[in-house]
Order: sequence, then structure tokens, then C-alpha cells
Amino acid sequence: MKMKAAVMTGVGQPLAIQEVTLDAPKANEVLVRVAATGVCHSDLNALDDETTPFPTILGHEGAGVVEAVGPNVTKVKPGDKVALSWVPYCGTCEFCVTGAVHLCESAFGPMFEGTLLDGTTRLSKDGEKIYHNSLLSTFAEYTVVPEMSCVKLPDEMPLAQASLIGCGVATGYGAAVHAAGVTPGSTVAVFGIGGVGVNAIQGARIAGASKIIACDMKPANLEIAKKFGATHTINVGEENAEERLKELTDGFGVHFAIDCTGNTNATQSAWKGTRKGGTVVVIGAFHPAKEITLPAGGFHRVGKVLKGSFYGNTQPFRDFPAIAKLYLDGKFNLDDLVLGRIQLDEINKAFDSFHDACCINVGRTVIEFPEK
Amino acid sequence: MKMKAAVMTGVGQPLAIQEVTLDAPKANEVLVRVAATGVCHSDLNALDDETTPFPTILGHEGAGVVEAVGPNVTKVKPGDKVALSWVPYCGTCEFCVTGAVHLCESAFGPMFEGTLLDGTTRLSKDGEKIYHNSLLSTFAEYTVVPEMSCVKLPDEMPLAQASLIGCGVATGYGAAVHAAGVTPGSTVAVFGIGGVGVNAIQGARIAGASKIIACDMKPANLEIAKKFGATHTINVGEENAEERLKELTDGFGVHFAIDCTGNTNATQSAWKGTRKGGTVVVIGAFHPAKEITLPAGGFHRVGKVLKGSFYGNTQPFRDFPAIAKLYLDGKFNLDDLVLGRIQLDEINKAFDSFHDACCINVGRTVIEFPEK
Repeated sequence: MKMKAAVMTGVGQPLAIQEVTLDAPKANEVLVRVAATGVCHSDLNALDDETTPFPTILGHEGAGVVEAVGPNVTKVKPGDKVALSWVPYCGTCEFCVTGAVHLCESAFGPMFEGTLLDGTTRLSKDGEKIYHNSLLSTFAEYTVVPEMSCVKLPDEMPLAQASLIGCGVATGYGAAVHAAGVTPGSTVAVFGIGGVGVNAIQGARIAGASKIIACDMKPANLEIAKKFGATHTINVGEENAEERLKELTDGFGVHFAIDCTGNTNATQSAWKGTRKGGTVVVIGAFHPAKEITLPAGGFHRVGKVLKGSFYGNTQPFRDFPAIAKLYLDGKFNLDDLVLGRIQLDEINKAFDSFHDACCINVGRTVIEFPEK
Repeated sequence: MKMKAAVMTGVGQPLAIQEVTLDAPKANEVLVRVAATGVCHSDLNALDDETTPFPTILGHEGAGVVEAVGPNVTKVKPGDKVALSWVPYCGTCEFCVTGAVHLCESAFGPMFEGTLLDGTTRLSKDGEKIYHNSLLSTFAEYTVVPEMSCVKLPDEMPLAQASLIGCGVATGYGAAVHAAGVTPGSTVAVFGIGGVGVNAIQGARIAGASKIIACDMKPANLEIAKKFGATHTINVGEENAEERLKELTDGFGVHFAIDCTGNTNATQSAWKGTRKGGTVVVIGAFHPAKEITLPAGGFHRVGKVLKGSFYGNTQPFRDFPAIAKLYLDGKFNLDDLVLGRIQLDEINKAFDSFHDACCINVGRTVIEFPEK
């Protein structure tokens, strides 16, 4: 089929709106009509990355409607509303069978090669191959994706909001709910109030935390944090986070800290501001040359836990419907994450808008596609 | 009552065998006739520590028979065989009620003050106060201890072996079973083969680990490790631990690593030799000025866990009887931990023997008391 897509034609170049060809889904693949797709900062990173295979179609936050299915597909059928996950998994490796499907490696080879899971592509233009990106390539009217990337949502779920579930929303929510395991009545600090951090706050709120302390350097972000459930804020540029966290928690420090910053100084503050037996979850990506440094004295004595978490330890088939249901019940704020709605033709504006601090950090511009 | 005890009369001085006075147990206290007590390297540390209140009676690994109980004691009665825990707990603080009784702080104030839990002492000589140590002071014929330190064991349990359960045995066993949560079929590395490390190995063996890889610099210790269940050994002075661990585990690294060394370089090796999603438990005490440094690149991506563990996350009333039962069933090797048996009069020999490398590192000299 022919469709319109925003094609990355060169590193750092504006995306080109082109008519491209999409082949039919093969076995275990699904053809999805994209209804909405978020523009994530990672898309900008991919656009600027010398190692991204191109020409390609970026976009890895998306939702839509199943148009057709390839052989062997059983989980969805045409007409189903779906949210997409860029972390499909095999279901049989040791990580998958122990519940850590986010650590499955099956998708990563194809992801780096710019193909689907079978190592081939469905995208082309005038006979020339176009690479897939993150197995989703949602900056297009249609996409062919792995069945394991395709999670059915309730029919009443609006698709602009749904399009955000599969990346920053799930990562933040899952960091609090699954990786940290926030418990009712507990105290939680979230470092780094961006598109992930606000959803960590929401996860902590939904899990019943009694105090949720947002930590960031930008007053505007701390204000936004309150909208998502933060009960207290610390401006880490002006206050000593460790001391303030202890003051807010009877001197002990928080039960859980979630570090979304990618800044090892924040990790240290989170560690020091967490109580004995507490847990620090690190979800930010650090510069590869950096090191995390923790005080060794008394380390064994205090029984704390430091853990890395990828993709919020998300199990898409468990978590995407749960988040959608929470949204539909009025308990999960997705509406305030949709900062703007544009058409595909305007996509380069969304990339430009990353230079607007607010958009970089918290909300998303969502591209909507007119219904066919 | 009058009794014989080994009294610390000055920092670094040989212990003095003296007749001292022991008062009757008060509420929630138990009078125990000490049958056997291990001499731990921590006793040597306390003897050499300027901050240890003295005169005092050291000794914190012990077992014996309940002689009398104070008011309100319900868990034991005269004639019961008991192993002693130097980490009694309150049962009601937030740590206790969430299963982390090892993090309860109720005992630590009195412990540092050299008293029992009520802030007073039961020990004296010629009217002069003698301090308790670690709430147990087992280098004596009798001791008065908190009821919460007194764990009933099966009648058939031999008390020399039982005397070791409450310190290094529980710490190592619990590090594997509770802190790491070793699972059947998993792979485990234990760094630092001493009195704690061999019991971490035993815990891993009992929990069903398929490979248990002992890592140490001393060939003699690596040989001993095999006696307790190590299936493989790495001489970290000669081999690259990270590389060898990966070679032994299909390239992935171990599922669990337990660092008993107190050496931050070992912690780094353990971290690097552990697979994605794996857990590193740190139970060694580091020098207070040291730092633990971990590579930050990809930290979130690999989903590993670093946790400190104190006292093996032991719940004495759960774990001491379990270890005794495992011993009686022939599944837990305590016999090889008893390296020598001496009388109280010879206690300074045990301290001297810490200069013998073998004794420092793995087994214990046990002081036995003739039955009255």
C-alpha cells in the first residue's frame, strides 16, 4: 500500500513528508492505522545520531486501530484499538519467564539494524528500502509492527492519550509501581520532573504514597509536578535535597526514591535522602563515561537497595490496559501530557519545539491523523 | 549469683578470668547457662576498640540452657536449649512490622552503652559495674539476655554447633537465602571465603543454586569453600573474576553475587560479573572513608540490583530453628566450623589464634563450659 510518512533522509535533517510503500504484514505482524503518535525527545536523539540507519521513519509512541493481521496473529483483530510498545519480547527466554520481559533481548538486534523482528523491512520508496525505527515507525499513516508490540485497549480509550502510554508514561508509572514497589502510606522522592518523572509521581500516587516529593531545579517543573500528584517540592538548585527529604520524613529519609535525571549527583542525593531499608530506583540514562559513587561506610548496615530500571519494568499486556483503565476512571492524568496536537505535515515544528523548555521536559506534542 | 567470666579490663589487654556477680533477670529477660560460645573476629575488634565501654565481658555467639526467666517471659522456660542473637528487636517499629527486624534500632542504643535493653546492667565485681557487650556477654558461665535474643532449639541440637548459628552462620546463610533470594537452578558467586562466606555458600547450596563460585585470593580458603558446597573457584589474585564468572555462566554473568569482603574492589568485580537483572548483596563492612563506584553507563538498562544486607536479613525466630533442623538433617555443615574446643581459662589462646590465617578466615574456636 501507499501512504504518507515523515521520512528521515539524513542525520539532523528536517523530516521529509513523502509517499512511501508499506508491504503487508508477515507472520506474527500487524498492520496498524496510526491514529496518534507522540514526538519524544528520543526521536530527536535518533535524528541527530550518526548510527541511526536511514532513510527511516522515526516514531515509537503510538496508538491506532488494527487494519489487518498477518498469519498466526491471535491477540488482536481488525478494528481493535491498540497502543504500541517499542519493547516487544519473546516470551520464552529466562528474563521473560521470570517476569522481566523488559530485559528480553530479542528485539534489540533488529532494532539496531532498522528491521522488524525477522530481519527484513516492509518499508520502501520507489523500490529503495526504508528502515524501520524502534520496530514501530509511527510517523506515518500506517505501520506494520510485531504482534507483541500491539496491546489492545478499551474501545472508549481516546487515541491521542493512548499514544503516550507506551513510552514515558509506562516508564515512569512502572518505575514507581513495579521497580520501586511503592507501598500505601510510604514516602517517595522523584528526582527529575520530566515526561517520565511526572508519571513516576502518578504511579506513586496511585500506589497510595502518603508523601510524594518532587525534586528538580526548575520552579516551573515543580509546579507541574503538583498537577500530577506531588505533595511537596524541593528546588535542588537552592536547597539541600538530602536534608530536606529527612526533614519531611521524621528524620529518616524517604522509603523510595526514583531518579529520572541521568545525573549521578542526583543519584547520590537520592541515596542519601532514602531511609534504612529503602529503595532507590535509577531510570535515567547516564553518560557512559560517568560513575555512580556511593558512600561505603555502613553500606551493609543500612540495608538499602539501588536498582536500575529499564522501561519501568513494564509488562505491556499487564500495564497498558491498566493505565488506560485508570485514565478512563479519572485516576491517571494523560490529558495534561498532551500539550499540543498537530498534523503530520507539521512534524518538524514538534522537533523545533524541543527547544522550548516546557515541551522538552514534561508534555508531548501529539501528531494526529485524520480518520480515513 | 557468682560466676566465672573472662573480663576485658583494658583496651587490647588479655582477658582476665575473674569471679563476677550476675544479678537475676528482670522483666523480659532470661538467665542462660552458657554451654558454648564462639570467639569471633569482632570480639578481637571490640577488644582493640577505644570506644568499647569496659570493664566488660565480650562474646556474642553463644548457646546454652535456660536456667531461669524474669517476669513476662513467655517464649522460653527453664531447661530449654537456646541459641542467642545479638540483634534483639522490638517487634513493633516500621522495620519489624515489615519483616526487616534486622533493621530495628531498639537494641543499638543499649548496645553502644554497654547495658541491657532497659539501660541498666546485671554484671558487677566487688560492687563495681561491669558492662554488657552486644547484649550477650557470653564469655562467662552464665548470662542474662533479652527474651528476644533467646531462640529455642530442638533438644537434640548439640550446643557447640548451636553456638555459632547466631552470628556468622546466620549472616552468611541469610545473605544468600533472604537478602539475595537465591533461586533453584541459579548461579551464585561468593566473594570472600571466611566464616560468613562459607555460610553464604551453604545458603546458596540449600536454596538450590546450580553453580556456586567461590572467589578469594587464598587457595586454602578456596579448598575449604568446596567442603561447604562451592562447585567452582576463582583465585581473584590470579584470574579476572568478571571474565571467569561470565565464562562459567554462558557469557551472561551470575544471577546472584554475595560480597563478604569489605573491599570495594570486590564489590565492583561482583557487580560486573553479575548478569542483567541480577542481584549483588554486600554484607562486608567497608572502611568508612571508602566509596563504592559503579559504572553509570547503561546502569538503568541492565536492571541490576545492589543491596546492603545486615545480619543476613535474619529473623532469628524463623532462621535459627531452620538452620538447626538443616544441621540435624545433615544438610548444613556446622561441624567443620568448629575448629577447636577450649575451656574459658584458655580464651586468650583463641584471640592469639586469630593470627593464624585459617582461623581468622573460616572456622571458629569454640569455648565449651563443663556442665554443672
